[in-house]
Amino acid sequence: MTKPILWIAPGACSLAPHILIREAGIDFETILINVKPGFPEEYRHMNPKGRVPILQIGDITITEVPAIMTAISQMVPGKHLLGKTNLEIVRTYEWCNWLSGTVHAQAFGGVRRTYRFSDDPETYESIRAKGRKTVEESFEYIEERLQGTHAVGDSFTAVDGFLLVFYRWGNQLEFDMRAKYPKFTSLVEEGLERDSVKAAFREEGIEFWV
Amino acid sequence: MTKPILWIAPGACSLAPHILIREAGIDFETILINVKPGFPEEYRHMNPKGRVPILQIGDITITEVPAIMTAISQMVPGKHLLGKTNLEIVRTYEWCNWLSGTVHAQAFGGVRRTYRFSDDPETYESIRAKGRKTVEESFEYIEERLQGTHAVGDSFTAVDGFLLVFYRWGNQLEFDMRAKYPKFTSLVEEGLERDSVKAAFREEGIEFWV
Repeated sequence: MTKPILWIAPGACSLAPHILIREAGIDFETILINVKPGFPEEYRHMNPKGRVPILQIGDITITEVPAIMTAISQMVPGKHLLGKTNLEIVRTYEWCNWLSGTVHAQAFGGVRRTYRFSDDPETYESIRAKGRKTVEESFEYIEERLQGTHAVGDSFTAVDGFLLVFYRWGNQLEFDMRAKYPKFTSLVEEGLERDSVKAAFREEGIEFWV
Repeated sequence: MTKPILWIAPGACSLAPHILIREAGIDFETILINVKPGFPEEYRHMNPKGRVPILQIGDITITEVPAIMTAISQMVPGKHLLGKTNLEIVRTYEWCNWLSGTVHAQAFGGVRRTYRFSDDPETYESIRAKGRKTVEESFEYIEERLQGTHAVGDSFTAVDGFLLVFYRWGNQLEFDMRAKYPKFTSLVEEGLERDSVKAAFREEGIEFWV
């Protein structure tokens, strides 16, 4: 098999498939790019939508977090990275779609990529404030919904790595994550002990607690 | 098996799983609710996130379009409603995540659910204009990406039904869909011939061309 290449940006949502591909134990390469000032035009041919992550396998290019997670899981079906039962797999897609669409695109997007929602800088303060409010409501929902140290079933799935990304972003927004979200914190602390997570952080050159 | 109940709102994104469950040939019921003024508080216990669609199977409640599509497809695995090969399935999740997160939540959300992005009505005109622009860019991307009358592989999948919803919303925004997007139009016209689509429109009491 051609060695997969995962295009990522340090600490971006691409951290979630980066953790997952390490959990899978697949031999892969990374290409680290800087998307802070926006997606680099020189790489737009890789993804016309202008986002990381991108999973490249030979001539095939896959975008969107849940799709890349699906592709990774398909490579090691015995590891059940999306869950063990049909219902667990459904729950994984349910979490990932909401995390990707509502929590990332809508809530954090409003805070950090405000220009996606309006061309008028005078509106930005209001959009950022609303994004922050939606982040907070989303964290409350996560805390309410979690029942153990894993989001789906009784072992690590793609969702746990994805949740870890947003917890870290919550730290960055200076939410008092530990005090407000004890269940979410315990899921994340379990994750931080994993070799896959440690190696991903090392390679991306990022810290968890900021 | 308990008969599944699909909670939908006429013409909402729930039309996509509604079409799919009819394609599946599963015996099901619908509950039609009105979400135009916002999600009804009396049903919030069904989905604290306050959105349709909801798929209810006995005590189990599933939300988020791609998760519901996964559950429907699992009931009739031989119909390959998410695609025939591993790569087709990946493509289906890639389309659905982008349609759900970028096209629906970000672009159409800005136009139609503007209050999700700011609490200040003075910003709404600007947010709506940007949403409309993102809808247009998304339609251009769809048109560029389509290669035949189906979005994934050579037969109907969950993606075709989902795309049909956004084409219809494009009509409602008075985009000149036929003239600008011939490939997208041909996909939709193929879809409109399907019994599943006709029956779903009939039950929701909606028209396609508005």
